[in-house]
Parts: sequence; structure tokens; C-alpha cells
Amino acid sequence: MNMKNRDIISIRDMTKEDIEYILKKSEEMEKNMKKNKNLLNGYVLSTLFFEPSTRTRLSFESAMNKLGGRVISVAQPKASSVAKGETLADTVKTVEQYSDVIVMRHPNEGAARLAADVVDIPIINAGDGANQHPTQTLLDLYTINKECGKIDGLSIAMMGDLKYGRTVHSLATALAYYNVKLIFITPEELKMPSEIKKYLKNKGIPYREISGIDEIGKADVLYVTRIQKERFPDPADYEKVKGIYKILPETLDILGNAKIMHPLPRVDEISPEIDKSKNAIYFRQARNGIPVRMTLLSLVLGEME
Amino acid sequence: MNMKNRDIISIRDMTKEDIEYILKKSEEMEKNMKKNKNLLNGYVLSTLFFEPSTRTRLSFESAMNKLGGRVISVAQPKASSVAKGETLADTVKTVEQYSDVIVMRHPNEGAARLAADVVDIPIINAGDGANQHPTQTLLDLYTINKECGKIDGLSIAMMGDLKYGRTVHSLATALAYYNVKLIFITPEELKMPSEIKKYLKNKGIPYREISGIDEIGKADVLYVTRIQKERFPDPADYEKVKGIYKILPETLDILGNAKIMHPLPRVDEISPEIDKSKNAIYFRQARNGIPVRMTLLSLVLGEME
Amino acid sequence: MNMKNRDIISIRDMTKEDIEYILKKSEEMEKNMKKNKNLLNGYVLSTLFFEPSTRTRLSFESAMNKLGGRVISVAQPKASSVAKGETLADTVKTVEQYSDVIVMRHPNEGAARLAADVVDIPIINAGDGANQHPTQTLLDLYTINKECGKIDGLSIAMMGDLKYGRTVHSLATALAYYNVKLIFITPEELKMPSEIKKYLKNKGIPYREISGIDEIGKADVLYVTRIQKERFPDPADYEKVKGIYKILPETLDILGNAKIMHPLPRVDEISPEIDKSKNAIYFRQARNGIPVRMTLLSLVLGEME
Repeated sequence: MNMKNRDIISIRDMTKEDIEYILKKSEEMEKNMKKNKNLLNGYVLSTLFFEPSTRTRLSFESAMNKLGGRVISVAQPKASSVAKGETLADTVKTVEQYSDVIVMRHPNEGAARLAADVVDIPIINAGDGANQHPTQTLLDLYTINKECGKIDGLSIAMMGDLKYGRTVHSLATALAYYNVKLIFITPEELKMPSEIKKYLKNKGIPYREISGIDEIGKADVLYVTRIQKERFPDPADYEKVKGIYKILPETLDILGNAKIMHPLPRVDEISPEIDKSKNAIYFRQARNGIPVRMTLLSLVLGEME
Repeated sequence: MNMKNRDIISIRDMTKEDIEYILKKSEEMEKNMKKNKNLLNGYVLSTLFFEPSTRTRLSFESAMNKLGGRVISVAQPKASSVAKGETLADTVKTVEQYSDVIVMRHPNEGAARLAADVVDIPIINAGDGANQHPTQTLLDLYTINKECGKIDGLSIAMMGDLKYGRTVHSLATALAYYNVKLIFITPEELKMPSEIKKYLKNKGIPYREISGIDEIGKADVLYVTRIQKERFPDPADYEKVKGIYKILPETLDILGNAKIMHPLPRVDEISPEIDKSKNAIYFRQARNGIPVRMTLLSLVLGEME
Repeated sequence: MNMKNRDIISIRDMTKEDIEYILKKSEEMEKNMKKNKNLLNGYVLSTLFFEPSTRTRLSFESAMNKLGGRVISVAQPKASSVAKGETLADTVKTVEQYSDVIVMRHPNEGAARLAADVVDIPIINAGDGANQHPTQTLLDLYTINKECGKIDGLSIAMMGDLKYGRTVHSLATALAYYNVKLIFITPEELKMPSEIKKYLKNKGIPYREISGIDEIGKADVLYVTRIQKERFPDPADYEKVKGIYKILPETLDILGNAKIMHPLPRVDEISPEIDKSKNAIYFRQARNGIPVRMTLLSLVLGEME
């Protein structure tokens, strides 16, 4: 499959074949890290982060460097030309002149799409507001597949803030390509949006909505997200729910062999005592961002097929 | 020509032969980007920016990386040693210990010259206050030569803030080496300084000063600059002129084939509708910074002759 | 000696053999800079600086780049995940996923040790509060050895703030491995802590405490440190001492051939007129950080033995 010059803006732009192809290529990449260490020699990646995201930026920078490519960074565009009144379109068009590929994060929904429309080099969306963060979803799928040996047939639970959580929306959407069962564990205030649930219904994906982890039943994966205080109009509502969606050592009895994932950073959703359990795979999950992003960079730059 | 260890501080330090040589070498560089991708392997460039300038910094970083060299950056010297009371001389002498070449921007006139006096490695001035920004001038000349096929014989108009605009002062000075006609389009408050005009007269360069673009007549190039509000002691004066030096679609009828240049960022001096016209060359102009800066780095590091 | 995967946290963790080995290897490294320019190709260093330290960071970045390795940087962790409430342990464990080695600076004593305990890749401490900065000590020892041809048998004076100065504590501790005489020149308020003096006594290292440089007698090295105003509870006390520990041209008569060192940045402890004297070796001292850090990186990554 030739993905040269493709923009990676939204997981919704991808067919199941695209996703499967990227997962397969990422697996090969992980096995051949050393062999590919000069694959992108001579290429320059610009990271253009209009809001900070250390781990996503580092992960892309590490991926590019592991391939022999180079990285230049605009960490705070507001400090510079943007402050002088430059439009987003002009900023990305200018950065295009110095780069072969752009990885971009922006607080506004649709910013990455707009950027892709005005430049000729590939754009990879590293998060546009509450909207999309497709490379996170790809590394999540890669992690599930690698840790469980498959995706089809799995029961996958998601817990925490499913109303505002970009990662879980995107992951649920992508999982609809597979034969999975979903379980949503949330307080009343933070339920999965009806738009996503409608989408799942149309795709024939069964899901259960429950309010406590004790009702989880058999699950292969538990994807935990942070509950952010600022999401609650009334702080008192936050105080009510904040403690009840935590993974504690005693929770492991309920979870059985379920693999625990988390997009990180965590605050206190998962007790550090869990880290050494065989359920905990969230740091390995972060590491999987490297081969997945190495693969995406190589594909859109046309150095891998 | 051997430029090893030369500092690039001011366009006024350069002979016509220097400039011509750099333009010729930049042309060769642009044709051989891939071939030179390991030319500066093992060299370290330090960028030392005492005020932000994203595009200049990125352009140098991309240039160094495209040659296989490495870049280390001091983005906000004020956050660190300078805050502890260190002198500029000490800062650059310390950075010298870690580097093979320094690219530096500073708000004070003469800062780059001072730096060059205290260190032994080459210094490239990336802007010292309102004074000099020689690599911008070289990429401007390169762009004119590339787009028009020559510099001699051209009519070159400059529009906007010619009083405070560092780029146009420097460009006009350099163009005095060539057989050109100049046209200055400004409001009364922002005319080209008499010092520059005297210099042009001495060099026998004819120029016209006009107040509106409709009087431009035949021109090969129109170099547009931003009019900054903060330049006007009385804000009311700014309000009077701010709109009348804009390139709108209807302006193209007046311009004929004139190539439109701009050092970027633009605010609203050039309507985005112009971007797709064949007159608009400002994004290509930005891109030309790469081969020109690749050439300068290679020359002062002694890896090109 | 195999130092693969060793953490470099404190000079106190090192035996004399470790130190001698690192100094010998650094000497070889300095002679073979070019030969080693691809030694760390494929490796990624993360610099994780919780407080700014431009020169230490640049020195490590330059060292890694001179070896063909790559650097990714978290310059202000507070701007990102840490702000979201992430623990230090989680931050370093996440950065570990993207890196082969971490260089870290943190305002809190013991932070580097904590980091080393939670990650599997090597951690190099680039300063943890007032505690340790072992690579500075190693480059100081390297400098003394290189400039004086030996360490054993030397008289080494330290002047300025010996109470709070991390560098001089660490250096005095390391020098206790050698057969040296120490001289401490300080105001009453800033004397070397009794803990360090007790340590020296136990090791049989003779030292003198004096209050003025005129009593220095014969010394081979004078290590000068900055006196920081903020160290004095009463600003009046600072005013009393601030001027009297300065190296002025006339001081050279007292110093004879003593080599003057300083960890930099200096404020006005050493007059710039001294810079050209043959006594002044502080900028060369800074430069010595490159081969020493190149060596440490190569050793802990297992690419040198």
C-alpha cells in the first residue's frame, strides 16, 4: 500500500485495511529498529505544537531520530510570528518551506485539516482540541493486538471520563471495525456521547454501560482515563465521583487477567502499587508509540511501502 | 574563494565578489541537496537567540540538519545564565566551547560584531536589532536572481515601512552593487532614511520616491514590508496609512509581471487571494533561505570552497 | 572496566578507580573526537531539566551529538504533564520509553537517585538541588589533571561561597582520593561545612582556612565560585563581603602560576582583564565538559569499555 504524501488527520479517514496495514508494518518496524536507523537520513520533521504535549512531541522526536531523520521544533508559536498577527495558514505554509513533514498539535478542532489543505507536504495530527489524535489510537490498537494476540473477539472496557475523553472516542470508533464487545464504566455525568453510541449500533458493536467496576464481568482490556475536575460545571459533582474510579490493589481481584491501559499522564486513577502487576501495560503502551510513529513517518515520506 | 572562519555580520562587509560567489554556490547547493547530506557530519551549530525569531531559527536549523550537522539551541538566554548576571561576551565564549559555529540574534545593534570579536569560531548574525540581518539579504538577492534570471537591469520597488525596515535597508545597500533602478513607495512618515539614499546616490543608483502603488510604473520586483503600528508616535498617523499599502487582487492589474516578495510574516499587507497568482513568490523566497544558509554554513566551516 | 547501565548520581558512589578510569578514557576521547563521531548512532538521549541550566544542557547535547547520537529535550516539565499532577516517578518512567539514557536536573536533593531507582536505563545526574553534580566534578578533575599534568601533590585553593557551593563540596570530596593540600578562602559567613571538613580529616587531607587571598601562599590551582546575594539572610552582610573576593589584575602577583578555575557563569568574581592571562583556564575548563561527557555517555550506553 502506498501512503506517500498522505495526511494523517483523523482515524475516521482510515479504512480497516489502512489500519491493519499500519499495524502490520509497525510490528515489522519494531523487529527491525536497528536496521532502519538511517532510513530517513536527510529528512526534516517539524513539530508545530500550539499547545504543550511533552510526551507526544518526545515520542515523535524519538521516532524520527531513531530513523536517522532530523527534527526542528516550534514549541510556542505564540511567542513568535503568531504573536505578530500571522494566520495559521501562513505559519504552516512557512514551516513547510523548511520541512519534509509536519507533526502538529493545536487547541482548535479542525486545525490539522486546515493545515493539510494549505500545504503540499504530509501533515500528521498530534491532537486538535477535543477532536482527533489518530496516532494515539493507532498505538492503542497496536498495544491491544500485541498484548492480547488479536483484537477480534475481545471484550474491551473503558473507564473514567468517556464524555470528554478524546482518546476513548477515537478508540471506540476504530474498534468498530473489529468484532469486539465494549463496556463503558462512568458516572452519570461522564457517559459516552450518544453520537458515538449510535455509530457503534450502526456497526453492530454490542456495548454495556455500567456505573461501577464491580459490574465489569469478563474483560480482556480495561482502558482507564483521567477524570478532570475542570469538566464539571459544579465542583461538588466532581468531589462525588473522583474517588470511585480508581484501580487499587484489591481491584485486581475483580479484573482477573484484564490488561490495564492508560494514555498517561495518570494522576491517581491507578495506584502505583499496580505498576508491577502483570495487568499493568500502560508504560509499554507508551513505548509502542515509537514503532507506530516510526512507521507512519516512513510511510508518508514514501520510504516504506 | 576561501571563506573558512569568516564571520557573517553585515552585508556591508561583503564585496560584490563575495556576494556573487555565495549566490553561485547556493545555486549549486540547491541542485545537490541530497549529495551534501553528510557534508557537515560531526559539526555542531549553536543557535543563540536573545529574542525570538522562529522562522530564521528554523531555517538555519533545517539547513544545518540537511547537511548532516547538528544543532543545539539556547532559545531564551534570559532564562538562564544571563539572568545570573553573565555578560554577553561570557555567554558567547562559553557557548563557543560547545560549538563549531554560532548563529545569533540579539536586540542590540552591534551585538553580533561584539560576539565575533571575542570568539574564535565563526559567528553568523541572524539579526542585531534594527541593524543587520545579512542572510536575509542574501536570500533576497538569491530569490531575485533565480526568479528574474538576473539582477542587473531590473527595476525593483520597495513598499511599506522603509524607515525602520531592516530588511529593505540592507537589501537596498546590497543592490547598489548592481545596475538597478529602485522605487520607494511609502507614506511621508516612513520614507527611506537619507543615509541610505545618500549611499545610493554615491553609487550612482537611480531611485524614485512615490507615495502610492498606482505610480509604480514598470517594475520587475515589488518587495513589500509590514507597517508596524508601534513605529508611529501618534496612533492616529498609523490609522491614516495602514490600509493604503495593501496588495489586493485589483492591484495585480497595476503590477503586470512584477514578482511580489515579502520577508514574512505578513499581517494584511498582501491579501491571501494573491498567494496563487504567478506574481506571488514570497513562500518560495522563504524556502530559498535553506540553500543559501546551507552554503554559508559550509563555507564558514571550511567544508566548501 | 564495564560501566554499561551504570547510573551517574553522585561522586560519592565512585571509587578512585572509577574516577581514574573515566579521566583516562576522557583523555583518549579528546584525542579521537572525529573517530568516534558515529559511535552512538541510533541512540537517543533525553535531557530532563526541571530547572534551567543552559550550559550543562548544551554541553551534554553537544557531547551526544558529537558522537552521532540524538537528543530530545524536556526543557520545562512544569509546562506539561507535571502540571497535570504527574509524579516525578511517572515522568521519568514515561521518558524512559522514548530514550536510551536520561540526563536530569532537578531542584530537589535526591531526585536523580529516585529516578534511577524507578527506571532501567542509565540516569546521569546533572544537578539535584544543593546536592550533587558529579559530571562537573569529573570535568574539574580532568581539567586539573590536564593543566597541571597530575593531581597528586598539588595545593588547591577554593574561594568564595564554600558554604552553599555544590561544586566545591563535590570537588573537595573527590580530591580526598588524592594526595593534595586544600586551602579555603571565605568570609566567616560562607565557610566550608564542618561535615566536609570532618570527611577530609578522616581521609588525612590537610587544609587551611583563611579569610583573604593575600594569605594563599603557594597554590597550583585557585577555584573561584560566585557569592550569591540570596545566600545572606541580612543583605548588609552581603554588601560587606561582595567585593573582597575578586580576582583583579593586581591579584595575579599574589597568585604566581596558579591556574584559575571557575564553574561559570561568573558575575564579577574575576575581572575580564584576567581572561587573557596564562592563569585563566575557566573557558578551557568548560570545554573539557565535552570529552568527559562524551566518555560518560559512551560508557553507560555500553559502547566503550
